[in-house]
Amino acid sequence: MTNAPTAKAPPKAFAFDVFGTVVDWRTSIAATVAPVLAAAGRTDIDAFAFTDAWRARYIVGMRSFGESGRSFVKLDVLHREMLDAVLAELSLDLGEAERHALVMGWHRLDPWPDSVEGLTRLKQRFPIVTCSNGHIALMVEMARHAGLPWDAILGAEISQAYKPLPAAYIATAQALDLAPGELCLVAAHHGDLAAARAAGLQCAFVHRPLEYGGAPAPDLKFEQDWEYRAADLIQLAEQLGC
Amino acid sequence: MTNAPTAKAPPKAFAFDVFGTVVDWRTSIAATVAPVLAAAGRTDIDAFAFTDAWRARYIVGMRSFGESGRSFVKLDVLHREMLDAVLAELSLDLGEAERHALVMGWHRLDPWPDSVEGLTRLKQRFPIVTCSNGHIALMVEMARHAGLPWDAILGAEISQAYKPLPAAYIATAQALDLAPGELCLVAAHHGDLAAARAAGLQCAFVHRPLEYGGAPAPDLKFEQDWEYRAADLIQLAEQLGC
Repeated sequence: MTNAPTAKAPPKAFAFDVFGTVVDWRTSIAATVAPVLAAAGRTDIDAFAFTDAWRARYIVGMRSFGESGRSFVKLDVLHREMLDAVLAELSLDLGEAERHALVMGWHRLDPWPDSVEGLTRLKQRFPIVTCSNGHIALMVEMARHAGLPWDAILGAEISQAYKPLPAAYIATAQALDLAPGELCLVAAHHGDLAAARAAGLQCAFVHRPLEYGGAPAPDLKFEQDWEYRAADLIQLAEQLGC
Repeated sequence: MTNAPTAKAPPKAFAFDVFGTVVDWRTSIAATVAPVLAAAGRTDIDAFAFTDAWRARYIVGMRSFGESGRSFVKLDVLHREMLDAVLAELSLDLGEAERHALVMGWHRLDPWPDSVEGLTRLKQRFPIVTCSNGHIALMVEMARHAGLPWDAILGAEISQAYKPLPAAYIATAQALDLAPGELCLVAAHHGDLAAARAAGLQCAFVHRPLEYGGAPAPDLKFEQDWEYRAADLIQLAEQLGC
């Protein structure tokens, strides 16, 4: 007996978490934050620590959004609210233009070194779409910046629901005319994958040990025996014969 | 005095009508229909005439959908209903598998010879998205079949409204975080462009004289002095410096 899940038909398409799985948000945002902190004369604040504090609010915000009863808004709105909270906590009063520029930094994140090749190879055989909490305009700009060859931008804005709500995963499958079990979520986050599996999707874990600069991910407790497990997107493509 | 519209800032993105503008539905569908008619022993029916009859019902159906009060359904559903009506008119009783295969033929239409190069050149400078009545799954399959490098699949399914309803155009602009006037619809159809202009978009007409096999288009009465006018998508790209 092993812990391997029952053999399933291979997925008909792959949906990707993007922040952390496909792009390195921490390095990109810290590079955007650093000159803003310097210009404000706040060299006492570390750009990576600032970035981590911003992202920590995002993770909490996404997990509680469903319970908040709030209607869907584009991620720019939430990124701005969370930024304002971080700035207030640091007693750092940036102007409107600086705040807007920082929020827009999330539209232009750099890919991990393997992402473009891995996605390009997977796309030869399977439709590849986003299943991200990033909205359409953000994902389009990021794809153009980073060279990500998506077949379609799906996920939160299409479903009007943020992950980890089941609707975000199920609506992404429905948009492709697929049953949930015919779609595989690819993510570096066990919490995201656990929610996708609960919604009926297949799951592929991609290890991104540098997402938090080497610190442990906050969702290790959700780890399970996923259908696929790879060191990066090129290895995932190889596992799938691409 | 000329009839030219007031000079406007260039568009920030281009949204494309697809059936007829980017792909040659008539030749592709007739090629799918012909062997089905032959297998049914109905050599008295011309495959192009069959295709034209199917498409004529689509045009009427789209123009009246908004008034019907019916909720949005994916285009496959409407294509099937219209096919069933055409078959009934011809007293041609096809089986379920044949009907399904014909409907799915709309997912795999071939591009006009200039489409892939024109889109690829435009994409270097502008986001290019669909603003079609085709749903996401259909557009994804067609893009993969025909090599159409869309940045995003927008249009009817995103807006839950069929063109020429204003919501189909406006929601496509909103999904890109653009004002309607910052988006340009590209279409071979004056009726589509007239509705887009009424919704505030800029307009580019692409001439597709073979869309109806050389017969005149059914919407010539909507012709206006559009912001852009080109013989094909390569010429449009050239006009925009791409």
